[in-house]
Amino acid sequence: MRQFATHPAARGLQDDAAVLEVGTETLILTQDTMVEGVHYLAAQDLADVAWKLVACNLSDLAAKGAEPLGVLYSHMLGTQDQRFLDGMREVLAAYDVPLLGGDTVSGGPPRSFSLTAIGKATFKPVPSRSGARPGDAVYLSGPVGAAMMGFEALRDGTVGDSAAFRRPVPLLTQGRALAPFVTAMMDVSDGLLLDAKRIADTSGVTLALESAAIPLSAPEARRDDALRWGDDYQLLFTGPENCDWPVAVHRIGQVERPAKDSLLVDRLPPDAGSPLGYIHRS
Amino acid sequence: MRQFATHPAARGLQDDAAVLEVGTETLILTQDTMVEGVHYLAAQDLADVAWKLVACNLSDLAAKGAEPLGVLYSHMLGTQDQRFLDGMREVLAAYDVPLLGGDTVSGGPPRSFSLTAIGKATFKPVPSRSGARPGDAVYLSGPVGAAMMGFEALRDGTVGDSAAFRRPVPLLTQGRALAPFVTAMMDVSDGLLLDAKRIADTSGVTLALESAAIPLSAPEARRDDALRWGDDYQLLFTGPENCDWPVAVHRIGQVERPAKDSLLVDRLPPDAGSPLGYIHRS
Repeated sequence: MRQFATHPAARGLQDDAAVLEVGTETLILTQDTMVEGVHYLAAQDLADVAWKLVACNLSDLAAKGAEPLGVLYSHMLGTQDQRFLDGMREVLAAYDVPLLGGDTVSGGPPRSFSLTAIGKATFKPVPSRSGARPGDAVYLSGPVGAAMMGFEALRDGTVGDSAAFRRPVPLLTQGRALAPFVTAMMDVSDGLLLDAKRIADTSGVTLALESAAIPLSAPEARRDDALRWGDDYQLLFTGPENCDWPVAVHRIGQVERPAKDSLLVDRLPPDAGSPLGYIHRS
Repeated sequence: MRQFATHPAARGLQDDAAVLEVGTETLILTQDTMVEGVHYLAAQDLADVAWKLVACNLSDLAAKGAEPLGVLYSHMLGTQDQRFLDGMREVLAAYDVPLLGGDTVSGGPPRSFSLTAIGKATFKPVPSRSGARPGDAVYLSGPVGAAMMGFEALRDGTVGDSAAFRRPVPLLTQGRALAPFVTAMMDVSDGLLLDAKRIADTSGVTLALESAAIPLSAPEARRDDALRWGDDYQLLFTGPENCDWPVAVHRIGQVERPAKDSLLVDRLPPDAGSPLGYIHRS
């Protein structure tokens, strides 16, 4: 998840979901933590924080084409505890996900909330970041930038709609539908360019994006920022150039043989003076 | 896990492990969080904190007779990061448990660390807190009090051995051996009396303990404190009076029909002026 205040030591470890084979089952496990003042504003409604905590973990499952089986979470007690529980109830009902357990702890400020989601693969091989092949096209499930605009509206108290930042939508249905067709897939949590580079580096290829082809939910003047923000939880994936995709997709570039730069935007390496995504800012 | 500094809002929710049936497999999931200044002293070696975080989750699996399949954790970056990783590596090697994944976040102070362990049931029905029956005996796998003494040695900087507090041992082998024979089982994490009452209340029975029969790793004068401390991670369980137990056990009482008080110590309800376990102090 995108952090909007970053500790100098943060290094953006890849927090890909884990795949665990147990008997005949293939399980997907993911854990994320939200910290007050780091992943959410201290003034935010904790119902939105609970929603987002669940949604970002379910989004990790979506990128694996997995069906959620349940969640466990740690609740650090403080103010607005009931709002947190309300939001948890709402998001679990919205996606029909059972609450398996959890614990409460004292602590903070700053408070933090951790959640683990477990899911079951619906297609094997489970999509990973490492399967992109030269000749594939690069696709995105929908526009980026809405979370950035929503965050700014919330932070600045303007009339803009902040829902995309507060209550992101995990693309579970799309992830399951896409899983049989993709060669690599992940959800865009830390910034499109950063996540594209992760697929490129893990797959040992170059991803060449065409910026004008990237759908945007932000003013055109903010295009460059939107490509480096995150939190939109769109699915970024690679697959055949010609494919009868089962859901709406946007072709945003192509996969090429490995080159000096593993990520190109309009044939150039992205401006090295700007971070590709927020968590690499240090 | 026992908290030694308690927020007034902490209410000691039961954080029992979750049992999840997936296809033909029965999975056990548990999540625990350790907070600086709440579950560990700020001055502690983070290698010990990592050890304990894993051990207390594995202990939850032990109480279910489960075999660990792996862990995921959230690492809040700060000082001593390498020590935390060292301790994590040590404890996972000691119990041969794979690291499945995790993420790093910024945050704190106070820092917090969350860990999820997943295991596989080795016997069904999976032991729970609810199966104690009148006529059963109550058993404990070993002495309590060592963690309390260890904590005090560490806090006061005396020569006493603090290992039991810093590096508890999850009784995985014992839990698996006992699972087929017990009617109820849990690990003693929050205090023997509190955890005994949880079994009694969940099972709808009375647990009548004989204090002199409870094995102690503390001076006799501290017996009452040791029964209300926690963090020893012994297994507390109920089962037949006459049973050829596969591991060493200590008979510490009996299960009776439900009565006015669900927990009796030497035929009396425990002193209401003292907490049964630490997390109920508020």
